[in-house]
Amino acid sequence: MKFDREKMLAKWQEKARLVDRALEELLPPSDREPAVIHQAMRYSLFAGGKRIRPVLTLAAAEVAGGNWRDALPAACALEMIHTYSLIHDDLPAMDNDDFRRGKPTCHRVYGEGMAILAGDALLTLAFQVLAEAATGKEAQRYIQVIAEIAAAAGTAGMVGGQVMDLQAENQVIDGTTMAKIHSLKTGALIRAAVRSGALLAGAEEDVLQVLTVYAEKFGLAFQITDDILDEVGEAAKMGKNPGSDRRKQKATYPSLYGLEVAREKAREAVEEAVVVLKPLGERAEFLEFLACYLLEREG
Amino acid sequence: MKFDREKMLAKWQEKARLVDRALEELLPPSDREPAVIHQAMRYSLFAGGKRIRPVLTLAAAEVAGGNWRDALPAACALEMIHTYSLIHDDLPAMDNDDFRRGKPTCHRVYGEGMAILAGDALLTLAFQVLAEAATGKEAQRYIQVIAEIAAAAGTAGMVGGQVMDLQAENQVIDGTTMAKIHSLKTGALIRAAVRSGALLAGAEEDVLQVLTVYAEKFGLAFQITDDILDEVGEAAKMGKNPGSDRRKQKATYPSLYGLEVAREKAREAVEEAVVVLKPLGERAEFLEFLACYLLEREG
Repeated sequence: MKFDREKMLAKWQEKARLVDRALEELLPPSDREPAVIHQAMRYSLFAGGKRIRPVLTLAAAEVAGGNWRDALPAACALEMIHTYSLIHDDLPAMDNDDFRRGKPTCHRVYGEGMAILAGDALLTLAFQVLAEAATGKEAQRYIQVIAEIAAAAGTAGMVGGQVMDLQAENQVIDGTTMAKIHSLKTGALIRAAVRSGALLAGAEEDVLQVLTVYAEKFGLAFQITDDILDEVGEAAKMGKNPGSDRRKQKATYPSLYGLEVAREKAREAVEEAVVVLKPLGERAEFLEFLACYLLEREG
Repeated sequence: MKFDREKMLAKWQEKARLVDRALEELLPPSDREPAVIHQAMRYSLFAGGKRIRPVLTLAAAEVAGGNWRDALPAACALEMIHTYSLIHDDLPAMDNDDFRRGKPTCHRVYGEGMAILAGDALLTLAFQVLAEAATGKEAQRYIQVIAEIAAAAGTAGMVGGQVMDLQAENQVIDGTTMAKIHSLKTGALIRAAVRSGALLAGAEEDVLQVLTVYAEKFGLAFQITDDILDEVGEAAKMGKNPGSDRRKQKATYPSLYGLEVAREKAREAVEEAVVVLKPLGERAEFLEFLACYLLEREG
């Protein structure tokens, strides 16, 4: 293995801890009235996510020559938006999921109405955090990042993907449509996460370009390995029961192409992500590791 | 009557038209894929609202010596946020309302999942519009407005009020709690609407202060007259059946104080809104009219 695996995992953990600590401060305390909504927001936000998106943001900022501190509010906002999308996707009117990360979903604990509001509140807080970070000489960069994150989270991105996903229920869809749903639903926000870090670091245009392609390949590999995990993963490591896509008759990479071809596609996407980083040299090692890690993820 | 009523109503209509035209341009066209979500967003946004919040924003900008054009994106964003809140409030898991502004509610037409997403998308688009307006020399003002609107829409404002409203179901609550729910659920966004216009116009501190108090009194009068309408209004003019608060056993100004005292409280709030405007002189005439109009509203 070319990576110092322990060192890389420690780096990931360290960044995830920075994000967790910042989120802890940004979220209203769980005893502030009306307390139940803050509890519901925290329940889902601190449910043990791997913080992939915010870690990508911090790592991209560093690779682009910036300070992770400047990117921390954006990283936190992205995790809030990701969490809101999970809460709403899990609702009975959407995917109707009872478990997420090994725990009952937000609406199972707090009720449907409160879960809808907890999602709304996380989305709203994300933009408040971004706006409050937009001060001083970096203000213009943050404004660009707010617009970009909003676009990635809206109907041209994440929400659009969820709409197509809802519409695809009980429909036979082809590979192109399935790939489009994945790329909007998951890819757009991952792309925004990497680009936000780079933009806030004031990345040169060529570095931004490299990181954007990296993010797109990373997103694709993430989607495919997510589908594979749902097919073959172990419940204990995933925190939910595998096979949920199949039960819902969702089109996935394995269901459309078979497990072996899906694995090959994931390997290809990771390889492309790694190759595009080459011009950045050693400083991109951690981003390279994160992409390669997707091929061995178990949860 | 001290106002030239026709002139004032024409002014309102003209501003509402400006907002409608801008919203038409800001919303993705209804044939852009995935089309159904854009149709659902437009269905609720163009359902015939009176555009009170955005009209207040434009009027406040003018009173504070600014150009309504600078405030137009904020005005539109506020109407999007207001509309998202109506869509989510109407959901079965919340107020479970079938009609709004004389038409079936969003979830009755597009289904629950799509209505949740349409609300999410409107909230997200609101912040995209705000961020994209934050360019040039007014960028810093827009940033302040984004933070202020987000705070007013979140758990310390609108969402917080809706949480308390959900919790109050089938509970006996007192006047203080009822007033708190109203002021968070409705007052916070109205306050942000007026202040956004003033802030974007670069209002002097004393003018901002006057307009803030005006907004708070206006919001209060709006809430009370809304409750009264629900008690005694005519279905045809309201676009929904009156009495829905009573059927849901919601505490309202009339239910807690009786109709006459509620009317008196509304008159008092309007009077206070008018008095506080005095130092601004004639230029505040339209804001004065809007407050007085609340006492004769029928829908």
